[in-house]
Amino acid sequence: MTDFNHIETKYITFDKPLPLESGAVLPEITLAYETYGELNEDKSNAILVFHALTGDAHAAGRHTPEDRKPGWWDPMIGPGKAFDTDKYFVICANTIGGCMGSTGPVSINPKTGKRYGSDFPIVTIGDMVAAQKMLIDHMGIGKLFCVVGGSMGGMMTLQWAKSYPERTGLVIPIATTAHMSAQGIAFDAVGRTAVMSDPNWNNGDYYDGEGPENGLAVARMIAHITYMSKESMRQKFGRRLQNSSSLRYDHENDFRVENYLEYQGGIFVKRFDANSYICVTKALDYFDLAQPSGDLRKELAPTKDSPFLIISISSDWLCPTEMSKEIASALRRTHLYISYAEMDSDYGHDAFLVETDSLTNLIGNFLSMFEKK
Amino acid sequence: MTDFNHIETKYITFDKPLPLESGAVLPEITLAYETYGELNEDKSNAILVFHALTGDAHAAGRHTPEDRKPGWWDPMIGPGKAFDTDKYFVICANTIGGCMGSTGPVSINPKTGKRYGSDFPIVTIGDMVAAQKMLIDHMGIGKLFCVVGGSMGGMMTLQWAKSYPERTGLVIPIATTAHMSAQGIAFDAVGRTAVMSDPNWNNGDYYDGEGPENGLAVARMIAHITYMSKESMRQKFGRRLQNSSSLRYDHENDFRVENYLEYQGGIFVKRFDANSYICVTKALDYFDLAQPSGDLRKELAPTKDSPFLIISISSDWLCPTEMSKEIASALRRTHLYISYAEMDSDYGHDAFLVETDSLTNLIGNFLSMFEKK
Repeated sequence: MTDFNHIETKYITFDKPLPLESGAVLPEITLAYETYGELNEDKSNAILVFHALTGDAHAAGRHTPEDRKPGWWDPMIGPGKAFDTDKYFVICANTIGGCMGSTGPVSINPKTGKRYGSDFPIVTIGDMVAAQKMLIDHMGIGKLFCVVGGSMGGMMTLQWAKSYPERTGLVIPIATTAHMSAQGIAFDAVGRTAVMSDPNWNNGDYYDGEGPENGLAVARMIAHITYMSKESMRQKFGRRLQNSSSLRYDHENDFRVENYLEYQGGIFVKRFDANSYICVTKALDYFDLAQPSGDLRKELAPTKDSPFLIISISSDWLCPTEMSKEIASALRRTHLYISYAEMDSDYGHDAFLVETDSLTNLIGNFLSMFEKK
Repeated sequence: MTDFNHIETKYITFDKPLPLESGAVLPEITLAYETYGELNEDKSNAILVFHALTGDAHAAGRHTPEDRKPGWWDPMIGPGKAFDTDKYFVICANTIGGCMGSTGPVSINPKTGKRYGSDFPIVTIGDMVAAQKMLIDHMGIGKLFCVVGGSMGGMMTLQWAKSYPERTGLVIPIATTAHMSAQGIAFDAVGRTAVMSDPNWNNGDYYDGEGPENGLAVARMIAHITYMSKESMRQKFGRRLQNSSSLRYDHENDFRVENYLEYQGGIFVKRFDANSYICVTKALDYFDLAQPSGDLRKELAPTKDSPFLIISISSDWLCPTEMSKEIASALRRTHLYISYAEMDSDYGHDAFLVETDSLTNLIGNFLSMFEKK
């Protein structure tokens, strides 16, 4: 039985090269991952959870009972929860290109003995799921009972289904899209420009000195705005002032929302690597499930035996409901079972991390329909 | 008769001090302004046009026939146009705090003989219209026939009406709000952070060296996204690649939208001053027409004799329609004539600069109703 007060992050290294969509090859890869629950005898109860842009493998529980915070989707994963670990074996791995234990720009390049830095190749969502497939193969799991994730994790969910349809049971993409919008690319591009115009960027080879923290903080601040709805910002901050009872009339922050964003930028640069940020946002921007044919319906046709539950968030303006409807519509003629739900929430894009009660209802019902009795 | 091929920007200096809302005082101010058409004998046909955040006094016509581009609202101002210069005397002045000829951070501080730089006080929308009132007083105009502007110009329009109700005829605020939203403040704050974390910022005293051009470019790129709708970005760029037929898999720009934003950032830093950018965005964020009482209805009650035409843009997500409706609703019980129109356009916030045919219809009808025969 999983002890949720002593969750261990495990690391596995595959010495096999991973060929990437760009044509580059990663000579070896390490994946950081966690598991919750027990894999059953016929290995038919595994659920692979994909994290979002800057997330990690620590999806549920605490490393030690003293941890202040549990994993990022803790209300969703555990005994009796939506992803019920009394029934299911839940896996979450850190994506390659990131910086939370899996191979990425901060890793040592075995060819040079130094950190990859700027030499780390740009990876795609397809490459990310290919890396995780090595883990699933290693575990001897033929077909996943379910793949699920929100935002970039939703892209990985869709990509897994497309890349490995015969290895895929249920598919639950949340708050995501079949292709990054021009506006989404634009926000990512400005974030990257902020990082790369920081004098400490040094073309990505900054590990011997200070990193481009100012630029990365700005990138995070921009992104953070896109994760909240206009309404949630109004409710949370409105025009409330930070410290004083009146306006300051200087260059300092006046409003609470300014301090909040500055704080978010500040904590982010302590936990995330700038090269990884460039890498994962490029992966987002490159994502286009309709390629190579340009026909989303055709590209998704091989997934026809998988039941889909597609969930959008009413106030999400980064991946608005239309984008989920586009996916549902592409499946309509070919697929046996498609369910689509718009979750009513003011939280915006990040609601998939917050509205866990609603998600538990939606996902719990869906899983129970397909559960083996 | 105005020769629209030889429009001259005029400059006027007022030696009189201008006390600011912050308590600071500008010892003298210069305003850059342009006029189109003729002021009639009883000085009753003057229309004051307010420009947006980074705009200038050059609203219509060309300085010389060789100019590639006319003024920023040229389709709206001229003989037979919405603001018909055969009937009206149209005035547009550059705002203080800006950098297009009126007193701002790049101006010489008469007390030190050097550029203000970081010593330039933060000005408010109220201060901006107070400065323009000096020009209107100087021209001997008692009551303006109309005040009009979009975005920040719309804030100035509303502020003029509130500050000088007895000097105000028609009021036309476009694509604006009675108070900056938390999300709007957030975007401005990130832009300012980008400028101020550029090592060339030097606390605003950068005029002897290179300015914080990288930071300012990032600020402009962020802002530019907010001026377009998601749909207009999709139509204009979609996921089209810039140069190559395939993805680059490197740190360079892949998508057209990336190059477009980079280009917008690049041209902006050539024409706009970073200190001014800080100053005018602070003015936006400080704007709250409901203050000091907190009651928008009460604060706008003194404008009750002015007919209002409030125009919002259907795809504007920076100042969405609800914000214009809030203004209309605050006027409902007290005012004799309020007209509200949502202009249907995919262009987003910047539609007030683009959809000049629709604006001409709306504004032309409104002006003709109140025109003296």
